[in-house]
Amino acid sequence: MTSARGPGRPKLDPTVDNRQRILTTARELFSESGFERTTMRAIGRRAGVDPALIHHYFGTKSDLLVAALRPEVNVAAVFDGIADTDSSVGREFVHRVIDFWERDPQQRARAVALLRVAVTHEQIADRLREFIRGVATAALGEFVATDDSDRRVAMVMSQMLGLILARYVMKVPGIADASATELSRWVGPTIDNYLSGDIGGVSPDR
Amino acid sequence: MTSARGPGRPKLDPTVDNRQRILTTARELFSESGFERTTMRAIGRRAGVDPALIHHYFGTKSDLLVAALRPEVNVAAVFDGIADTDSSVGREFVHRVIDFWERDPQQRARAVALLRVAVTHEQIADRLREFIRGVATAALGEFVATDDSDRRVAMVMSQMLGLILARYVMKVPGIADASATELSRWVGPTIDNYLSGDIGGVSPDR
Repeated sequence: MTSARGPGRPKLDPTVDNRQRILTTARELFSESGFERTTMRAIGRRAGVDPALIHHYFGTKSDLLVAALRPEVNVAAVFDGIADTDSSVGREFVHRVIDFWERDPQQRARAVALLRVAVTHEQIADRLREFIRGVATAALGEFVATDDSDRRVAMVMSQMLGLILARYVMKVPGIADASATELSRWVGPTIDNYLSGDIGGVSPDR
Repeated sequence: MTSARGPGRPKLDPTVDNRQRILTTARELFSESGFERTTMRAIGRRAGVDPALIHHYFGTKSDLLVAALRPEVNVAAVFDGIADTDSSVGREFVHRVIDFWERDPQQRARAVALLRVAVTHEQIADRLREFIRGVATAALGEFVATDDSDRRVAMVMSQMLGLILARYVMKVPGIADASATELSRWVGPTIDNYLSGDIGGVSPDR
């Protein structure tokens, strides 16, 4: 999203202030009233901006919710040099995803909240899915085998979604209490297989 | 749960009727008003039974919700002979799980509803987790390697939860539109590995 800085106000950037204020207000209101009962009008009123400006910056209410709750993940920084370790790409990926989830409790709480809303609202599930796919593709794209690359990324998403759900939401013993290193050792080979292993293309039918 | 048939009423089994009526009424009310706003008192009133009887049969409100929404899965019938095919146990397991999910749209809708409530209510997540673990253990217990068997089952749960979430809730392309046979081919080897492969116990640290 581009910054539409107005002319003649060089000292202060009201665009940045407005965007931040809208995001903060949206988090408050979604948290207080839930997704359904929160209106763009109410967010605009409390943030002191025109609802049209919210639409202009963020799009629909679903888009705004995802923008307000999704982690601020700098993919380049989080996954830089993922292939340059003694570990496999899959292991290193799992380790860094878990590290990232555990670095900032506030971001984690928001991400869990986003997952919760997504499972009950199709439009938000759509946007979260595309966000996750974007992160996975940016982090792993160069390591995905070219045959069936979309399916390979989808399989990685399925295992990582399940791992996050099992660890942070369902709190499955053995996963909730494991270290990032343990999880990377157990799940890493699965990710490596989905990325570049034989995923059934040449196997006999069933 | 045992059937506490009363003495002197041999022809009709009011226990069965009451249990079924409570479950049906609970589904209606949870669906109409959500988990939070539905009370045991309201279920009792509409079902024509004393709320104490609901507690007696089903336990807490969380227990009742899980009983009302969980699939009626006859583990023995669904997973019988899982090792007696040309396929691997992992592949056969994935195939049968997906077949089961797709056999009955009404049960699937309920199971998705249960998953949705579980991700927002910790007590229900606890009960759903134990239900899933029970099914996984009953279906796969004899094929799980004895070292770290609890962790192995937990890893199977993480992949299957992610697969279900990706297919039926997040609708990830490549997974949502794949056949049961394709999914079993792609995910089966992961399940086989979690069940009996090397899951990192002897690997060097990271």
